[in-house]
Amino acid sequence: MIASILRRSTQRYISRVPSRPLATVASPTLEAVKQFFPDEPSHPSVTTAIPGPASQKIMSRLNQYQDTRSVFFVADFAKSKGNYIVDADGNILLDVFAQIASIPVGYNNPAFLALGQQPAFQTALANRAALGVNPNVDWVDSVEQAFMAVAPQGMDNVFTVMCGSCANENAFKTAFMYKAAKRRGDRDFNLQEINSCMKNKAPGSPDDMTILSFNQGFHGRLFGSLTATASKAIHKLDIPAFDWPKATFPQLKYPLGEHVEHNKQVEAAALKEVEELITKAKKPVAAVVIEPIQSEGGDNHASPDFFRKLQSICQSNDVLFIVDEVQTGVGATGTFWAHEAWNLPSPPDMVTFSKKFQAAGFYLSPRLRPAQAYRLYNTWMGDPVRAMQAAAIVQEIKDKDLLTNVQEVGKYLQENLTEMTKYTPISNIRGQGAFIAFDLPDGQKRDTFLSDMRQRGVNIGGCGDRTVRLRPMLTFQRPHADILLDTMKDSFA
Amino acid sequence: MIASILRRSTQRYISRVPSRPLATVASPTLEAVKQFFPDEPSHPSVTTAIPGPASQKIMSRLNQYQDTRSVFFVADFAKSKGNYIVDADGNILLDVFAQIASIPVGYNNPAFLALGQQPAFQTALANRAALGVNPNVDWVDSVEQAFMAVAPQGMDNVFTVMCGSCANENAFKTAFMYKAAKRRGDRDFNLQEINSCMKNKAPGSPDDMTILSFNQGFHGRLFGSLTATASKAIHKLDIPAFDWPKATFPQLKYPLGEHVEHNKQVEAAALKEVEELITKAKKPVAAVVIEPIQSEGGDNHASPDFFRKLQSICQSNDVLFIVDEVQTGVGATGTFWAHEAWNLPSPPDMVTFSKKFQAAGFYLSPRLRPAQAYRLYNTWMGDPVRAMQAAAIVQEIKDKDLLTNVQEVGKYLQENLTEMTKYTPISNIRGQGAFIAFDLPDGQKRDTFLSDMRQRGVNIGGCGDRTVRLRPMLTFQRPHADILLDTMKDSFA
Repeated sequence: MIASILRRSTQRYISRVPSRPLATVASPTLEAVKQFFPDEPSHPSVTTAIPGPASQKIMSRLNQYQDTRSVFFVADFAKSKGNYIVDADGNILLDVFAQIASIPVGYNNPAFLALGQQPAFQTALANRAALGVNPNVDWVDSVEQAFMAVAPQGMDNVFTVMCGSCANENAFKTAFMYKAAKRRGDRDFNLQEINSCMKNKAPGSPDDMTILSFNQGFHGRLFGSLTATASKAIHKLDIPAFDWPKATFPQLKYPLGEHVEHNKQVEAAALKEVEELITKAKKPVAAVVIEPIQSEGGDNHASPDFFRKLQSICQSNDVLFIVDEVQTGVGATGTFWAHEAWNLPSPPDMVTFSKKFQAAGFYLSPRLRPAQAYRLYNTWMGDPVRAMQAAAIVQEIKDKDLLTNVQEVGKYLQENLTEMTKYTPISNIRGQGAFIAFDLPDGQKRDTFLSDMRQRGVNIGGCGDRTVRLRPMLTFQRPHADILLDTMKDSFA
Repeated sequence: MIASILRRSTQRYISRVPSRPLATVASPTLEAVKQFFPDEPSHPSVTTAIPGPASQKIMSRLNQYQDTRSVFFVADFAKSKGNYIVDADGNILLDVFAQIASIPVGYNNPAFLALGQQPAFQTALANRAALGVNPNVDWVDSVEQAFMAVAPQGMDNVFTVMCGSCANENAFKTAFMYKAAKRRGDRDFNLQEINSCMKNKAPGSPDDMTILSFNQGFHGRLFGSLTATASKAIHKLDIPAFDWPKATFPQLKYPLGEHVEHNKQVEAAALKEVEELITKAKKPVAAVVIEPIQSEGGDNHASPDFFRKLQSICQSNDVLFIVDEVQTGVGATGTFWAHEAWNLPSPPDMVTFSKKFQAAGFYLSPRLRPAQAYRLYNTWMGDPVRAMQAAAIVQEIKDKDLLTNVQEVGKYLQENLTEMTKYTPISNIRGQGAFIAFDLPDGQKRDTFLSDMRQRGVNIGGCGDRTVRLRPMLTFQRPHADILLDTMKDSFA
């Protein structure tokens, strides 16, 4: 059932790619070995500590200028290939973290390398457009081939920016402008609004509108997006924030199939709370922002039914519904956008993206375009080079049928991890496609596990308090999954 | 005197480029014609209305997806060269706006095109690093060759991001963290702080610290940077803002040389106001942010003495001093950083950059590095590709002695524009290097002038209410200046 929905939605979005004819490639089978990268390594190989001496030498030099405490190891991308990252010491690791979930189609993907040689790409690189003033002649092609080719249905407008935080902040701005315009009705800005905003005072700078987000949510690290973020205190401490509310994200029990009744009740309670926060708010809520899977906050899931009802509550109360797909978007969950799995009766009002798409921005319903020019605006308004890459990613996903691959390898991984809960300390397997997580008993054991796995040649990241998040590229296949699973078994043995 | 300071500071910064040996090129003279781009057009050529039918056709197609009301015309960058931009209709314009002051060394600069072919550049393009996790092996080279080679003295740390707004917001965050850490003293975060920040409440999310900025200032369009911005109401209306104060930017009379006493008094009054805003503030000021020349707000200048005293006030009151060089930086004023002309006794605390540098970020004093990891952090933390371009820009500025060129052509332009005030409606000539502006009697006349100049083949932008801002590339030479000046004469005739 879910699989057929996934396949349908995949076709719906990918079939809209307007540029090149559909290639008739066979679906990859789980038995396919090295199909996507014939020349990638066949297994990890680690010969030093990680980080090794060469990494450490570079880190120490870099640390003069930049804080390197967060660095796992230094990457030698020229030698990396497909799903394998090579470090400065020549260690070869299977990469299931992929630059914080940001590599879509493998290291040194031939399509990407070929794109780098195209004259139009070189021109865009050497001449960076201010897209709001002088878009390049082929910008509109990129918009169609990258963003419009996979636009959520009914969302035919896109505003492009430089990063995920900027995407969310501009979506929030759009929500505030829309809400204020509705309040104002047909009249133009008045002098009081114009003068007060220049002093950061109401009514021009309204202090009575908010964005409602969820506990454990992550939406970025700038002042507006950080206000909406609530994943970890260390991100937020000491930074002034707006007085915007937080709702409880349903704390489901995993595996979902074993806790259906409990989870239904938890979701119903969460929805009730959201509805009360909206209807009883002293400061009207302009928009609700939510991730399809709370990623940084611990890979917390909710059901399609929850999201449909959340949208319905928003619509009943004239609150915009923003879906933050910065981490979940671009195929990782088995559909191009994770929210496709919800089967919403009507599209979200805005969908934000970045990371795997290389280009950042947000889709919006055309009715949200501000009435005046220069209100959503900045110098670059995105990057033509990254948009061309996004178009290549869309094409590669289509050519290689990567969404089917993600669905199949995701199912395989989820089944095998579930089996592994019987004889290892991992628990709470949850996932959508290959966007999968599990827990260890505590944060210390989780960190030890991640470090041991890296030493064994598998690079993975954590999230939340004690969660391991798998963020393979879309080219991750069954042989890679087997290496991951076998290495986990060795680590726990 | 100023020239010798400029030359000295130029040498100081550029001589620190560590990578390649200094080329012994002769300084360009004003007589040099087409020195930098032997194959660029010799004059503008306009054969259609601007935007012409080809531009309009693309704009109409693009307008389905994106707001095109701000677009001047569509650019054909493949055909553009040096200081000339070619549009979709084949019109050739001398470009004195340069993608909102963001093209440093000319369209299709050979050094840029050559960089695009380098294997390391291609690798960085096809494999986008999460620099906080897996910096590439050559990232540290880029940091040294781009950012450190021109670091303001004493500012040996740099944090890289994706755009100018992000640069300012992260600088503000750094200021708040620093101020809060000083308040807190040696103790760690307490539970009350940790818990309250997750609800966007004090004391964890402090509501009693501010960033002080100036009227007419522009620092970006995200929630924190927009709060500090006060250039135009249309940027700020309907967007919630923090309750941060604004000080009066001295409203000098131009030309500066004719209003010395008046301007001294105006600056003294502005400094007194700043001091009072800081010392009598109910909410302590964490940092002051200021542009060396208020650009978007109308090209407003202040004297080196003003900035030195402003820094002194900040230092006396333990307030950080942030210089926003997003538009003024990277050579446009005749020194690499505009603030070099101030001869500060000690460096600023932070200097933000973007635009012409292609890479964005901010310099900071090492003492401002947060005590804990992951507090200044995001997925990409900048872009290795743009940093490599920044290194190439530094090298090109050195190789071609472009700062001397800017000083010379800037002087030539300022003198000739001053002469032109005698017989045209332009007034209030002011500039630093080739970063020059003048006024027209009102906004309507200014807009008509800009549109007429574009139709005559010279692309210029406006700022403030009635100001024309010249933002030539660093490769703009005397023959280009003559075309600009002659076209202005024709326009006014």
